[in-house]
Amino acid sequence: MVTIKEVAREAGVSVGTVSKVINGQYVRTLNQEQVEAAIKKLGYRVNTYARGLKAQQTYTAVVIVPDLLNPFFAGFVQETEGALAAAGYKMLLCISHCDTDTEIAYLNMAVQNKADGLITITYSDLDQYLDPALPVVSIDRTFSNSGCCVTGDNETGGVIAARQLIQRGCRKLIYIRSGSNRQGETLKRGEAFRKECIREGVEMTQKDFGESTTLNEKQIDEIQRFLEDNIKENKFLYDGIFTSSDIHGVVIKEKLVRMGIRIPEEVQIIGYDGVRTHQFGAYPVSSIAQPVEEMASVCVDRLLRMIGKEPVERKIVLPVCFVDGKTTIQITEKKKEKRKK
Amino acid sequence: MVTIKEVAREAGVSVGTVSKVINGQYVRTLNQEQVEAAIKKLGYRVNTYARGLKAQQTYTAVVIVPDLLNPFFAGFVQETEGALAAAGYKMLLCISHCDTDTEIAYLNMAVQNKADGLITITYSDLDQYLDPALPVVSIDRTFSNSGCCVTGDNETGGVIAARQLIQRGCRKLIYIRSGSNRQGETLKRGEAFRKECIREGVEMTQKDFGESTTLNEKQIDEIQRFLEDNIKENKFLYDGIFTSSDIHGVVIKEKLVRMGIRIPEEVQIIGYDGVRTHQFGAYPVSSIAQPVEEMASVCVDRLLRMIGKEPVERKIVLPVCFVDGKTTIQITEKKKEKRKK
Repeated sequence: MVTIKEVAREAGVSVGTVSKVINGQYVRTLNQEQVEAAIKKLGYRVNTYARGLKAQQTYTAVVIVPDLLNPFFAGFVQETEGALAAAGYKMLLCISHCDTDTEIAYLNMAVQNKADGLITITYSDLDQYLDPALPVVSIDRTFSNSGCCVTGDNETGGVIAARQLIQRGCRKLIYIRSGSNRQGETLKRGEAFRKECIREGVEMTQKDFGESTTLNEKQIDEIQRFLEDNIKENKFLYDGIFTSSDIHGVVIKEKLVRMGIRIPEEVQIIGYDGVRTHQFGAYPVSSIAQPVEEMASVCVDRLLRMIGKEPVERKIVLPVCFVDGKTTIQITEKKKEKRKK
Repeated sequence: MVTIKEVAREAGVSVGTVSKVINGQYVRTLNQEQVEAAIKKLGYRVNTYARGLKAQQTYTAVVIVPDLLNPFFAGFVQETEGALAAAGYKMLLCISHCDTDTEIAYLNMAVQNKADGLITITYSDLDQYLDPALPVVSIDRTFSNSGCCVTGDNETGGVIAARQLIQRGCRKLIYIRSGSNRQGETLKRGEAFRKECIREGVEMTQKDFGESTTLNEKQIDEIQRFLEDNIKENKFLYDGIFTSSDIHGVVIKEKLVRMGIRIPEEVQIIGYDGVRTHQFGAYPVSSIAQPVEEMASVCVDRLLRMIGKEPVERKIVLPVCFVDGKTTIQITEKKKEKRKK
């Protein structure tokens, strides 16, 4: 089957421009003609599964995220907007700051038929506010009555983090996190990390810094005090740190360095998400990288299927991988082999 | 006058929650009661200037930005969403990737009365597509027929960058930029930088890397080649670099370090924007910081005034300042004094 990307390449325009032609929106005349010629030449046919209910649709999706200052959320919103736009959908963006009232207001708006569907990153107790008839796709959590959950493989992520730190010689590990304690996929990061440490016979502690996933100033102050309290004779009491997000990892790295601790020689850090200051840049911490592009495109794909009344999976788990951000020591393949023996 | 923030503090809820009560949106009963009690106690009165045309309004604003991977744009969108939400407005977010067709499609949608106003960061030639009746506020550029321009003080920014580098001993400067060459406020950064260098009698070169403000892989490759071509005998030919954005600065810093150049000892870098990996973190490059929160709140304030048929300024220029990101050498106040003499 010919894809919209191939049409765009043939016409020499962006996927967004092809999408607009297909959806009858305005593009410049020259582009319109090139796209129509490419569609004809390649025999492209519009995938109509989401076109069934046109009269009742607004072609608008509500997207709820905690914030945009975490590059992981910003990247997710950017990729989601792109995938929605390619399908002719507009995005109403709600930045919740993890505030439940804000989330409920947007849910209500979506239910009142001003939006065709909902994509959320939320950790609130929203089950009672969700209409089972409204298509919902959510990252890292399952709602009780409806929807599809798209998540990175948090269990494998926790295991990889433990193995990478242990392999590099860490023997006293700590998992530092914040966020909801409600049953959610992200809790599996810490659980799998702990189990792997136990399996390997390595000491492991967990430290929680409150319910807010997005670190606030109070949490940052508490982290500062915790780090200070755990430095004795210029040494940090743990030699390996795993954190629930890269933001946690970056905060801790910067604070420890300022306290005179050498990273990664004395303390190694692995964060979670795989964020970067910009898309071509270095990772600020070693991390378990989530496939943000794929997460967004799968979210939009399943949302469109649900809008088109097609069945979808209750949960989709996508692969994660380790990335080197220089907060873990370099290790040669030879050394790895040695350790395995 | 009592502000919405004071009501929120009194009620012990977020500003967003107060806003929702004022706008008749759903909040939990307890919060509703607390907000109503606080409004009564403090004698708060809703500012009604933007409420005049309710029947014709959608309470939706379209926001167009190039991307969210640049933390400056992400921060701007986050602050803009917050200011809009506090006024009872929803945000339709368009990520343009600097694609003119995408921008025009959203402009048309806004004009077709599906949005009450428009906030843009765009460098395209859109004058002919703007309806003078549609309220428009834009960052860093003025449209010919309508709207309000909100911008950082780019002239002062360019002067500060030159002075900071010269003060720290740089004698061979280069301004590295990409982005539109159309007349826009951001061009003043380089112009003011050049003039200040001439005034100080310091050598200065400019290097352009194409029209795209958001660096793409082709531009990154060109920057890489340019840097390689300008390293002779392990020395970079310039001792001070000013860049049109922090992303440019970070890319150049990472590449030069990889080529064995010591930053800031051999080469000093000042970027533009004042971005950080997260809101509590260090600056990745020394920079001219733009007041992103104020820019967003002024944008929304002026948009609401225009929607309320009030007159607004054609251009508002907000202050910028130097921030230390460790890509410039430390300089004591004493040394500064000495240099002045």
